[in-house]
Amino acid sequence: MKLFIANKNYSTWSLRGWLVLRGFDIDFEEIELSLFTDEFYDELKKYSGAAKVPMLVDNGVPVWESLAICEYVNEQYLQGKGWPENAADRAKARAISSEMHAGFGGVRSEMPMNIRGRRKITPSETCLKDVQRIDDIWAEQMEAFADKGGYLFGEFSIADAMYAPIALRFLTYGVQLSEKAQIYADNILANAAVQQWVEESKQDLSVVPEDEAGIEINAYA
Amino acid sequence: MKLFIANKNYSTWSLRGWLVLRGFDIDFEEIELSLFTDEFYDELKKYSGAAKVPMLVDNGVPVWESLAICEYVNEQYLQGKGWPENAADRAKARAISSEMHAGFGGVRSEMPMNIRGRRKITPSETCLKDVQRIDDIWAEQMEAFADKGGYLFGEFSIADAMYAPIALRFLTYGVQLSEKAQIYADNILANAAVQQWVEESKQDLSVVPEDEAGIEINAYA
Repeated sequence: MKLFIANKNYSTWSLRGWLVLRGFDIDFEEIELSLFTDEFYDELKKYSGAAKVPMLVDNGVPVWESLAICEYVNEQYLQGKGWPENAADRAKARAISSEMHAGFGGVRSEMPMNIRGRRKITPSETCLKDVQRIDDIWAEQMEAFADKGGYLFGEFSIADAMYAPIALRFLTYGVQLSEKAQIYADNILANAAVQQWVEESKQDLSVVPEDEAGIEINAYA
Repeated sequence: MKLFIANKNYSTWSLRGWLVLRGFDIDFEEIELSLFTDEFYDELKKYSGAAKVPMLVDNGVPVWESLAICEYVNEQYLQGKGWPENAADRAKARAISSEMHAGFGGVRSEMPMNIRGRRKITPSETCLKDVQRIDDIWAEQMEAFADKGGYLFGEFSIADAMYAPIALRFLTYGVQLSEKAQIYADNILANAAVQQWVEESKQDLSVVPEDEAGIEINAYA
């Protein structure tokens, strides 16, 4: 099984696909392609006209879009354990994962992931509303699950893979969270697979100028 | 089971959630809330801070986001038959459904659904690229499945519920498709559940000014 990803410092979607595999200890070969290069599009177009990362290729079956990868891995490798066991929790986990997958445009455009970077910004109303909704989701789940494992639904699930990159963005932009939401941010940042990605992102010295606007500090320099 | 939806003439996401139920002959109560009204937000916030349509409430379990509703209905009411049976087809169906769920921003912003409206626009490059990708997806699936049922994966599936509103947008804006893609557009528009929605949208005389900019003709006037 191969997973195509992009630059580890920048690519949130890559991290989501990678995390659902690494977070559940599934073996795979990782292939990094640099964002916005010809090689990136040429390689990915062999598998789908969507030409997006993450792209999973398993026994010749290409799967793109992080949520579709998560559902595929859940069915083929996790016997359904990628989502919470309780049907109501599972419905909520999928709902908030879909909110992440399709929404939060304010956070995504104004706070691009740049793990090594630190930056102060003046967020728009849209961005602040996104941050508030994310804070509400995290705080609500910690209210229910903090002492049952500390992830969004207790044990690590696909929903955590979807939200982990947001915790990294919030670090870069110094976003202040409510107490309960911060507990979740701390928990997901301490996850071993997330830590491995962060460590590997430090080794990835590629620079994507499109994602460097306004970055003031290299936290590892 | 209750499904909250918005104005039938305009709300593509409502149509997606509604279609996965009606298209598979599942009984439900339909509750229409008018977009951008206080009642809309007040009612939906009882179930989730996301306050979005479609919102499914089944035995007290709220499920929001159309893809999450589809997966819920697939598990609880369709014994998995909402998606294609073959694992590779299922992976592709989820991938293209996710592309629809999170992408095609050009089509979504420049060609808002307005079933009764007709309008000429000059689409941006981004919008044209979206149209081309959608055409490619439909044509590719018709190449593979046109004589096996005529839907994206032969029989009607969740993927069709996700793409049906696009066929209605393309009618409104007079989008020219490749021959194979047009076969799919014709097939999905002829679907009995889609036809029912279109008929009911004619009875829904509410007007949302935000979605009326530039609309030149009322096709039913």
